[in-house]
Amino acid sequence: MREKYIQLGHGGGGRMARELIAEEIVSRFGDGPLRGLPDAATLPVLNIGTVFTTDSFVVQPFEFPGGNIGDLAVHGTVNDLAVAGARPLWLSLALILEEGLPLTDLRRVLDSLKHAADDCGVTVVTGDTKVVARGQADGIYINTAGIGAALEGFSLSPDNMMPGDRVLVSGSVGDHGAAVLTAREGIDLVNGPDSDSAPVHRLVLAVQHLGSAVRFMRDPTRGGLASVLNELVEERDIDIVLSEATIPVSKRTNAVTEILGLDVLHLASEGRMLLVCAADAEERILDVWHNMQEGAGAATIGVVKKSDGGCGRLILDTRAGGRRLVDSPRGELLPRIC
Amino acid sequence: MREKYIQLGHGGGGRMARELIAEEIVSRFGDGPLRGLPDAATLPVLNIGTVFTTDSFVVQPFEFPGGNIGDLAVHGTVNDLAVAGARPLWLSLALILEEGLPLTDLRRVLDSLKHAADDCGVTVVTGDTKVVARGQADGIYINTAGIGAALEGFSLSPDNMMPGDRVLVSGSVGDHGAAVLTAREGIDLVNGPDSDSAPVHRLVLAVQHLGSAVRFMRDPTRGGLASVLNELVEERDIDIVLSEATIPVSKRTNAVTEILGLDVLHLASEGRMLLVCAADAEERILDVWHNMQEGAGAATIGVVKKSDGGCGRLILDTRAGGRRLVDSPRGELLPRIC
Repeated sequence: MREKYIQLGHGGGGRMARELIAEEIVSRFGDGPLRGLPDAATLPVLNIGTVFTTDSFVVQPFEFPGGNIGDLAVHGTVNDLAVAGARPLWLSLALILEEGLPLTDLRRVLDSLKHAADDCGVTVVTGDTKVVARGQADGIYINTAGIGAALEGFSLSPDNMMPGDRVLVSGSVGDHGAAVLTAREGIDLVNGPDSDSAPVHRLVLAVQHLGSAVRFMRDPTRGGLASVLNELVEERDIDIVLSEATIPVSKRTNAVTEILGLDVLHLASEGRMLLVCAADAEERILDVWHNMQEGAGAATIGVVKKSDGGCGRLILDTRAGGRRLVDSPRGELLPRIC
Repeated sequence: MREKYIQLGHGGGGRMARELIAEEIVSRFGDGPLRGLPDAATLPVLNIGTVFTTDSFVVQPFEFPGGNIGDLAVHGTVNDLAVAGARPLWLSLALILEEGLPLTDLRRVLDSLKHAADDCGVTVVTGDTKVVARGQADGIYINTAGIGAALEGFSLSPDNMMPGDRVLVSGSVGDHGAAVLTAREGIDLVNGPDSDSAPVHRLVLAVQHLGSAVRFMRDPTRGGLASVLNELVEERDIDIVLSEATIPVSKRTNAVTEILGLDVLHLASEGRMLLVCAADAEERILDVWHNMQEGAGAATIGVVKKSDGGCGRLILDTRAGGRRLVDSPRGELLPRIC
């Protein structure tokens, strides 16, 4: 393709659009149902429950330490399927490109997206590309929807949580938020944090055999641990008590939160999962996860208790020996974090 | 909700986001799998091939005569599933909202989207909402992905087309493109065209019994009839010969194309379908369609011929008695038409 920048014509229904799709999309993703470029992909019969999810990605900047919007768009959707108790299978890929986007930028993003999809064992089967004029987007926005096959054995619901249950995370929290923030603000750190952008579906498959002892799984993205855990206790008669000293935080992310005065519990992760399980499953899960690259930093960070007051609370036992309530962030601490 | 405009906080992971989702999304779409707001929807087992598609909608203006981006986002995805030979079932709904969007605008769009989904018998089962700052989008962008169940009996492929086959359209062409264009340019017509935004899945179901006599179906959106039909003949040894006098064009759209010097064959439809069938199925399809509201204006507009030159061409027999080649639009005639 001669054009080195995305032009409005690449979003039309004409030849420029077809050339862009052929050269940049089919060349990377065209070995499956996407080959003939139908407007819809016909997929094999799934004799099991279908799990369906969607996420748009508008992260700014669209490249950041540890990843870019391409791998993020795969991991975010793969992880939503995984924590719903599904094996991720198929993705759609819808691009909104801003006129003037350098083609080399688009290619880096698509290469990264392809690499992540291959690593996760998912196939991009259908897609769409739109182009908007300068000032009507910000470089590149991506939507991925995903289809997965429900895994047997799980019975996941926050309503299954009971006093005594344990709260686990699969690794250090908040690294994605800290990495995007330092990249966006141009904060120059010798050793800045890298995004944790990664898939968690292997961590899910590894605990499938524990069945209903796994109560609930979630990837703590926007709003961080504080948001996910507050959602869990709200309108339930349980408290969750976290022990600050046990929450894994990388040195680099810790440095960023101290410099900027942020609460790491509000920062997004994009390659971690939170899991609530029966007390007697805790050690088995940690043993399995610690033997996996994705779960090497896993830890128990809290416990579920019966609520005193009737209305559930998220409580933090601090390192200093105190105890405080942890609130959800109200509005937007970090716009366009994913 | 007190806030009357979308704020960045509505896109975070915190309370403002959850309030927006509860009040505007769950209130409309929360009677199905979306109720508990899981990150992914678990759907019933489909013992038949799954058809999967995605489309982003960036139409400008997002409200136009005959529809808005909400119903368009349903019809576009429903129609992609339908012409692939599937019964549309489930949609995802991903919103990218620009800071400052009046909440009343969002509500009108969502009301329209809900109404269209109900009319099409599809359920919005999962979603996502992002907010970007002013100047990073243009009001509202919507992505819908769709899942449908493959209909038995069809054997659809452009490779099945044979000399003698007929080319049908289900109604007047180009009305959507003409309507959006007049709205965008502020052209003040006493009787301007209305978009044809509508579902075509009932037209597809009505011809399912004809099986392999239906060779190919497509909704002619971006790039119009010229783009779809050129794609069909390219790299095949068939010509398609259209008869200009038989192509249904509404008076209002005809007036717009004459005023602006546009070729109606390049204008998008969003509620019409193109169908290629065996010659002996032509009358049966027209009979069925003419008895349906969506197909009242259906007509045969062309015929498939063996190509002389080896390389397929799209040929138009003009009203004036001439004959000319019809090319695909190269770039973007009408940016952000859908």
